[in-house]
Amino acid sequence: MERRSFLKLTATGAAALGVAGCEQAGFMPPVQVESAVAEDTSLPAIEWPMATSWPPDLDSIFWSAHLVAERVAALTSGKFKIQPRPAGELASALEVLNVVEEGSVPIGHTVSHYYADRGPVVAFSTGLPFGLTARQQNAWLYEGGGLEILHAAYDSRFNIMQFPVGNSGAQMGGWFNKEINSLSDLPGLKMRIPGMAGQVMERLGVTAQMLPGGEIFQALESGAIDAAEWIGPYEDEKMNFHKVSTNYYYPGWWDPGSSVEVQINLDEWNKLPEQYQEALKSAAYETNLRVTARYDARNPAALHRLINDGGVQLRPFSDDILNAAEESAFALFEETAAADTDFASIYKEWNDFRKAIQSWHGLAERGYLQYVGRSR
Amino acid sequence: MERRSFLKLTATGAAALGVAGCEQAGFMPPVQVESAVAEDTSLPAIEWPMATSWPPDLDSIFWSAHLVAERVAALTSGKFKIQPRPAGELASALEVLNVVEEGSVPIGHTVSHYYADRGPVVAFSTGLPFGLTARQQNAWLYEGGGLEILHAAYDSRFNIMQFPVGNSGAQMGGWFNKEINSLSDLPGLKMRIPGMAGQVMERLGVTAQMLPGGEIFQALESGAIDAAEWIGPYEDEKMNFHKVSTNYYYPGWWDPGSSVEVQINLDEWNKLPEQYQEALKSAAYETNLRVTARYDARNPAALHRLINDGGVQLRPFSDDILNAAEESAFALFEETAAADTDFASIYKEWNDFRKAIQSWHGLAERGYLQYVGRSR
Repeated sequence: MERRSFLKLTATGAAALGVAGCEQAGFMPPVQVESAVAEDTSLPAIEWPMATSWPPDLDSIFWSAHLVAERVAALTSGKFKIQPRPAGELASALEVLNVVEEGSVPIGHTVSHYYADRGPVVAFSTGLPFGLTARQQNAWLYEGGGLEILHAAYDSRFNIMQFPVGNSGAQMGGWFNKEINSLSDLPGLKMRIPGMAGQVMERLGVTAQMLPGGEIFQALESGAIDAAEWIGPYEDEKMNFHKVSTNYYYPGWWDPGSSVEVQINLDEWNKLPEQYQEALKSAAYETNLRVTARYDARNPAALHRLINDGGVQLRPFSDDILNAAEESAFALFEETAAADTDFASIYKEWNDFRKAIQSWHGLAERGYLQYVGRSR
Repeated sequence: MERRSFLKLTATGAAALGVAGCEQAGFMPPVQVESAVAEDTSLPAIEWPMATSWPPDLDSIFWSAHLVAERVAALTSGKFKIQPRPAGELASALEVLNVVEEGSVPIGHTVSHYYADRGPVVAFSTGLPFGLTARQQNAWLYEGGGLEILHAAYDSRFNIMQFPVGNSGAQMGGWFNKEINSLSDLPGLKMRIPGMAGQVMERLGVTAQMLPGGEIFQALESGAIDAAEWIGPYEDEKMNFHKVSTNYYYPGWWDPGSSVEVQINLDEWNKLPEQYQEALKSAAYETNLRVTARYDARNPAALHRLINDGGVQLRPFSDDILNAAEESAFALFEETAAADTDFASIYKEWNDFRKAIQSWHGLAERGYLQYVGRSR
């Protein structure tokens, strides 16, 4: 696609300002606050289409894209409009980063670990297996230097600026067409699981597949795959996975706190007025918080429905699976760090941060959760 | 104090706009985005002083106030300025709500449970003992209808609009000048602990005292009180509590996820241009997220220092204390609901939400936390 600018100025608005200014020249009218704001035409009108990786009926993850757009519009008196489009319209689900990188679409909404073939460093943006919880991921990104080093990597590798816009919290471990009671039940299994988690599963004998959301149900139903992970009860229920598989495992050790993100072509970002950049930043922070809140508020009732109406069985992963997966994950991280200097430079700091914050959250936070869990 | 308006319009700016408009009348200049923004003078200049409950050296909780101000300024090209002032300058630490209510100060930064004498409903805004964690509190406020019912209550009771601007996460259980090994060690203890938690402690034989942050250290040092709770390692360390008391208990069952908030006089809020209201809303969301991230990022190293350099002993509350406190807390909630219809109407919904979300967080989230806690 041809690279073009998405910045448009409202000629009529700017001309109207000139005329109105002339009529008022030489005296100071009794300014009404409301009309002063309504007449604010000095900021440019901009319309950006947004490519996303999502089917439109997933109303938490797709809502994240809409919320970014809605808040940016609210913060710019409607001047800066972003229009999220479902997967397949502007780019296929797994090629959002690519179209933003080349500049044919100015902004995208996706998860970074879909682009693992472009370099392992993208995994830190989504979150690593056995890594950080939602709060820990946000702490690392915003106050642990994480976002800063990711920005440097995305700048040099993809010419992209990015911000997290929603964390799922600890996800479920997905849907399996048979019971997985021990490590020996994994070899030979075909499973939809992307990113480094897929690589970990491969080490445990699973054939990992990378399918976009819109193609998982059919693959599970047809038997092309034996298992699939997606997000959690609320979004999984919409995908109807429980209609073909009722073994629902936990915890999703590969996604303890996964972020979705907006990706913005850096040239387009740099052309934005500073106030619009600030609006997009704030909208991203706000959306990140509100999407997690939405998942947390909607998952309980969905889980209840899945169990009571859907005949779903909750099953914990066995300790031997968790232990082997954790060992494989950290072995993979070490090997990846040895082969990729960008990954290595982030991994060391990320891992130190992880150990420190998990130790702190193991005290008051886990102490409280364990107590209220026990006493109910 | 006399009520006055804090809305100021920039006369010179508006006049300049008129002149600039005339020079351009009749043709459409090649508009530079940067200069178009720089000339945006149609939004009014507003300066608001902000009363806070905090000593200025508490650089997470006071930072929350500064961050709200900084983000509002960034989102309005510097036109809407908020200036946080330490406790004692515009209002004493425990009277922020009062000055905002009467309108002598347009905006405040405080915690609601300081104002328990104004009605028990304020407790839901800060958080209840044995209540919601940080994520659960945000889920309830933003997606569980919590903020909406709180706004109705604050509107009718205080003529105030409010937004959460920072959650501490599960706090520590505070500093005790002697070991508290069982329930029988509590009677007779004088402890700084505000709000409903103080009422719960009273039921366990403690004399609960309500002291602002700036007065706690002296009271603990002089022996006027035997114990005090504040926040967590990072802010507690700045308060120097470990220099007079080394028994540091956990978890802070009374503050599993406490929110600080901004409170805005409703008449002043209603006078704001809509875009400034939206800026303040987004700044509040953003600050809420970033303050938790800052606590999470800074607590681990502070805890390490307290233990290794400060000689602090970490001690868990015994089960008999937790059980008795939990039983007293819910008995207090029931009695309060029976006596106060506002509290009752919120309590039922809040409690249903709490049970549902704690059940969900007891699955994938706690399963993950328990595993990574065990495996380190």
